[in-house]
Amino acid sequence: MFNVLLLNAYSANHAERLRRLLSTQWQVATLEATEGEGPFAKALLVADAVITTRYGLNMPQAPRLKLIQSPVAGHDRVFAEAIPPGCTFCNVHEHEIAVSEYVILAMLEWNVRMARLDASFRAGDWTGGVAVAGHTHGELAGKTLGLIGLGRIGRAVARRAKAFDMQVVAVTRTPRSNMDHVDHQGSMQELDTMLPRCDFLVVTCPLSEETRGMIDARRLALCRPHLVIINVARAAILDEEALYIALRDRIVAGAVLDVWYTYPTPAEPSARPSRFPFRELANVIMTTHCSAWTDGLIERRWRFIASNLDRLARGEPLQNIVFAARSPAQAEMPT
Amino acid sequence: MFNVLLLNAYSANHAERLRRLLSTQWQVATLEATEGEGPFAKALLVADAVITTRYGLNMPQAPRLKLIQSPVAGHDRVFAEAIPPGCTFCNVHEHEIAVSEYVILAMLEWNVRMARLDASFRAGDWTGGVAVAGHTHGELAGKTLGLIGLGRIGRAVARRAKAFDMQVVAVTRTPRSNMDHVDHQGSMQELDTMLPRCDFLVVTCPLSEETRGMIDARRLALCRPHLVIINVARAAILDEEALYIALRDRIVAGAVLDVWYTYPTPAEPSARPSRFPFRELANVIMTTHCSAWTDGLIERRWRFIASNLDRLARGEPLQNIVFAARSPAQAEMPT
Repeated sequence: MFNVLLLNAYSANHAERLRRLLSTQWQVATLEATEGEGPFAKALLVADAVITTRYGLNMPQAPRLKLIQSPVAGHDRVFAEAIPPGCTFCNVHEHEIAVSEYVILAMLEWNVRMARLDASFRAGDWTGGVAVAGHTHGELAGKTLGLIGLGRIGRAVARRAKAFDMQVVAVTRTPRSNMDHVDHQGSMQELDTMLPRCDFLVVTCPLSEETRGMIDARRLALCRPHLVIINVARAAILDEEALYIALRDRIVAGAVLDVWYTYPTPAEPSARPSRFPFRELANVIMTTHCSAWTDGLIERRWRFIASNLDRLARGEPLQNIVFAARSPAQAEMPT
Repeated sequence: MFNVLLLNAYSANHAERLRRLLSTQWQVATLEATEGEGPFAKALLVADAVITTRYGLNMPQAPRLKLIQSPVAGHDRVFAEAIPPGCTFCNVHEHEIAVSEYVILAMLEWNVRMARLDASFRAGDWTGGVAVAGHTHGELAGKTLGLIGLGRIGRAVARRAKAFDMQVVAVTRTPRSNMDHVDHQGSMQELDTMLPRCDFLVVTCPLSEETRGMIDARRLALCRPHLVIINVARAAILDEEALYIALRDRIVAGAVLDVWYTYPTPAEPSARPSRFPFRELANVIMTTHCSAWTDGLIERRWRFIASNLDRLARGEPLQNIVFAARSPAQAEMPT
């Protein structure tokens, strides 16, 4: 029998699901940070695995710990130097289906504005339809989609976009061969060449020191006036003020934004997502960082977590390793 | 020099576009029905081709007419027996791109409700996003899409749906081989077997005596309670009262409806689309028969019309023939 500890609500809410998915013998325990240091220290003493989004240097001793498993993809709150010797840190992905579906929806909805038609039609207005032969809407077919980043999400978007007969171009840190669904692929240095070609621009790259503020006022000025920007990565890749001004002054046509510059906290649950009033702009569709937040995502992630625990119990190699286990000797060496 | 006459606003508004697209020598004239019988009779006397959605027995003589070209797909207002001998009747399609994009949008929007998130988020509500880890939304991946009809529109929907990793099943009047994007294909007799398997049901077949009222109360009762119906064909394929009751009483989960039981007229421009108050149902997304109404559709249709006129001028075979020309002898034979 092995022990796994689910830390805090984000993980602990899924204890029942995890028990159902495990094939090997685990004792599944849950703990809230608010339960205090005593129970926490006691639980970590016997844990073989812990599921948590955070692991810092202030953690109590965990002598049996062999796996820290994140239930999310990002791991900016797990510190390599805090991980006990002999313990491996793994993350999860599984969000490329959900996020790529959101991106295609964003482009289609930008064209059609289905919800707006629904509201006006309920009030008796047939505008937008063939019966009054008024204004038409746009199509994706034949349009050029530019992708920044060609990881799991970028590739999932590209495959779907090609089924709509879009032209798909991309810049990526590591260009690869065998990209069936990408018409042209370049390095990040080709971004300035790609931007003026795009009808839609989708940001899917990770936030890093290279990508922070990468889309700035100079680059926004390279874009076509009808460009629509879709951001499902991290807000800070687009310079906050430059993006707001470009949208307000119609330097680009619009944006569908799912990621933000500030997030709610328990103290401020209705926090504004930016210091600029994006909410006053009619050419922005703004959502709550929901693109990955699907029932399918949660099921796939916990299935993955259960299978990684099963691998640990069976002595098989772990998957999605972010930081491999250091030997005790390595851990004791001065760094 | 040949003469083509564009009848009524729906065609006449595109005279300039047609002139630009023609490669052969045509005199392009336009006429409104309101201009009276004299000018109409005179124009038809010299016309080699006429572009119109209607052609009935009350038409004046058209001794030179070789082509009646519809600017739309439907041709329930063009009567075979009214077509002069030696004249061919052709229609246009080109709407499968637009309609299939609408269908995918309908399914994605049903899951995400992007516009609703946008509205509540502008007011400070982060619900639906990962930051509050609240309710999740659905995905298309892994869901079963049932198609009624596998013509141009059905096939275009199937191709896009497969890129989303949906299971695609279909019933069709004329099953064919080589259907790359359809997992299972059956005859119309298999409809009752297909319905209980579907998560989404898309109606794309033509309205005919066989399909009128085909989806009735009995068949709606065969569906899963979470089924979402999307109709982009003709309203009357779904029994009006049975559909309303099934939606009101949640026998099925919802519907995205783009086609209607009644349409606006000049006398009643805000006509209600049904004798039942679909507009009071929160589980319906209702649009104004807009699914095909795109800029791309209009450009492709007029490009097709110009090329058919070019073919006529060059003595080449016409395309999209609905009624082939009768010889004068055939036309004079008693029927």
